Amino acid sequence: MSASVSALAPARIANPPEAVQVPARIALLGTGTVGSAVLARLAAWEGTPLGRRLSLACVANSRIAVRAVGGGMRGDAADAPFARLLPSAASWQACVAHPALVDQALGDGACRIVVDATASEAVAERHPHWLAQGIHVVTACKLGQGASLARWRAIRGACTAGDARYGDSATVGAGLPLLRSLRELQAGGDRLHAIAGVLSGSLAWLFHHYDGMRPFSALVRQAREAGYTEPDPRDDLSGEDVRRKLLILARAGGAALDAGDVTVRSLVPPALAALPADAVDAALPTLDAPLRTRFADAWKDGERLRFIARLDLRGDAPLARVGLEALPADDPLAGGGGTDNRVAIWSDRYARQPLVIQGPGAGAEVTAAALLDDALRIARETQDGTPAGRASASR
Amino acid sequence: MSASVSALAPARIANPPEAVQVPARIALLGTGTVGSAVLARLAAWEGTPLGRRLSLACVANSRIAVRAVGGGMRGDAADAPFARLLPSAASWQACVAHPALVDQALGDGACRIVVDATASEAVAERHPHWLAQGIHVVTACKLGQGASLARWRAIRGACTAGDARYGDSATVGAGLPLLRSLRELQAGGDRLHAIAGVLSGSLAWLFHHYDGMRPFSALVRQAREAGYTEPDPRDDLSGEDVRRKLLILARAGGAALDAGDVTVRSLVPPALAALPADAVDAALPTLDAPLRTRFADAWKDGERLRFIARLDLRGDAPLARVGLEALPADDPLAGGGGTDNRVAIWSDRYARQPLVIQGPGAGAEVTAAALLDDALRIARETQDGTPAGRASASR
Repeated sequence: MSASVSALAPARIANPPEAVQVPARIALLGTGTVGSAVLARLAAWEGTPLGRRLSLACVANSRIAVRAVGGGMRGDAADAPFARLLPSAASWQACVAHPALVDQALGDGACRIVVDATASEAVAERHPHWLAQGIHVVTACKLGQGASLARWRAIRGACTAGDARYGDSATVGAGLPLLRSLRELQAGGDRLHAIAGVLSGSLAWLFHHYDGMRPFSALVRQAREAGYTEPDPRDDLSGEDVRRKLLILARAGGAALDAGDVTVRSLVPPALAALPADAVDAALPTLDAPLRTRFADAWKDGERLRFIARLDLRGDAPLARVGLEALPADDPLAGGGGTDNRVAIWSDRYARQPLVIQGPGAGAEVTAAALLDDALRIARETQDGTPAGRASASR
Repeated sequence: MSASVSALAPARIANPPEAVQVPARIALLGTGTVGSAVLARLAAWEGTPLGRRLSLACVANSRIAVRAVGGGMRGDAADAPFARLLPSAASWQACVAHPALVDQALGDGACRIVVDATASEAVAERHPHWLAQGIHVVTACKLGQGASLARWRAIRGACTAGDARYGDSATVGAGLPLLRSLRELQAGGDRLHAIAGVLSGSLAWLFHHYDGMRPFSALVRQAREAGYTEPDPRDDLSGEDVRRKLLILARAGGAALDAGDVTVRSLVPPALAALPADAVDAALPTLDAPLRTRFADAWKDGERLRFIARLDLRGDAPLARVGLEALPADDPLAGGGGTDNRVAIWSDRYARQPLVIQGPGAGAEVTAAALLDDALRIARETQDGTPAGRASASR
């Protein structure tokens, strides 16, 4: 039995048997790298206590959906590209995806969870609907809480109305204890002072490896091939993804900011931004000379270039900004390696020396693991009749 | 109203009113720096929603105990050294401390919590008794879970028997999300691979500041005067405190180790260890020459000296060791500053790049805050009828 110790509240280091009554029903939306990794992780848990807590009711992407109807694979489901990862014990009936599919597939079970592994505006728009119905939402998609203030408020209100949970640990830092630490500090009475850090794994990688000698564009191409950036690297270089993550952190920290409240200094010059996607690669070298100059200027001052997000809550109005900074080489935010996210949190108790959390903050595996962490917490709450995460410990 | 957002489970980012029914009754044991900081933090919360969740029923040290009897200060209580920090609304009847005091003072309330801010073997021995009675225990004292395996098992069994909670976030890292992260990773299905890091704030400070030129003994004296070490610095230099913390981490990570399973290379030579306490200061310079040699050897290899605890769970048997190591200057464990703890955790999802958590891991304020974090989580569970930490959010 996989050891699981209560983590989310003071340790109930006891050892009740894993008495699982009814599995939580899961509707997985999104079958790209993250959705596939979720399916793989669930498949690895088949026959284990963790696996018995969750049951896939439905798997869908924008083109096809399959849902379980009991016993053996049937018809189109066998052709679904992700079919090989589906639980062996479930039966799947392929059906055309339509908006009410998820609601129908989840039925009326005691614990129903939508797992959003898409990057879809349409799916995010539906988060409040599900929550209001008492369907929990666990999401890697940042468009729920990281888009308009109106949608963020709708989600919050719907959680109350529907008595439902919103699992967002996969939205910023792919499961790193960032949002959780912000919330725990506030729950414990601390006011947050500031947050600063590297929130983009791709930009972390680029600036850790950029040495001012190899052209920056060459590094961007290498990163893209390795899958560290989006196919269109402007999506990472623009800083828009970091803006959205900073919004989510700020809102969790008590600052009701909107996108316009975050100053973003994009790394994409207007000329590059205006090009069609198929012209981007040839134009990447336009980044090289300006960045080499910035690198050299920083280097002679003993500094390094890092793409940093900052939130300051200490003044009358919150300040939020994102952009390339030159940091002293020994600055806490200058360290780390690879694609690690690295975030410092200052609060009442961490006023001088911040809490610093670092680790892999992107990638399908950690993102999928974070989604299922949240799903399991919700499932345990219903199944064990105890606080989420409190059940069962073998130590 | 201090903002408090559910942290311990997927964010219930809703906004129910803070409807507190009955405050949890707290018996605070220990009135040294940590206990005093707990009283100060509670005093600052008087009249706030957080303050209404907790009620001091009893405050005791080994010499005196005071308990609330309703309405105004009375008699001897006013003389108790910590009396000035007692809640103004409580009445205190001084009484001689005796073992059953705590049980009596806590009475039969719905939520009763002992907060152990002592370093007392006798108090730790009583943890299982309280838990078995359904009295929750929140502790900074490491002698509960970090002493014998037998006591650790007694605590675990008592939690089940008494349906009580054991809050230990103050025992390692003074509230840094170390134990919590270990437990959450396992709850989410990860196996732990290894843990490594700096678990002693005093030794972190010493080795961050030691430059091989100033004598090490001079630095030890400076640290002692600043309160970074115990009055007898051998308590820190021996590594025994780190051994105990590593035991707690190992046990939370699934390895039922005992003290003898941890190899500790003490920084205190036998001759120094054998001296009476009042002879220690004069003998500290015996540390200087050997450490200077170690420093110089490391330096010429581009390495730094750090006092590191390591746990490796990947082999057939767990390996645990504590001691001074020479690390590459850019090693993740070599960074940080001040008295920061710095811990790396490797698990299934963090197999190559670990999760690294760093921050102030010692000191009265952060330790007191961690104790009250745990107490509030337990109180919320009872008062809100919901999972600990799930209640109330203004964002």
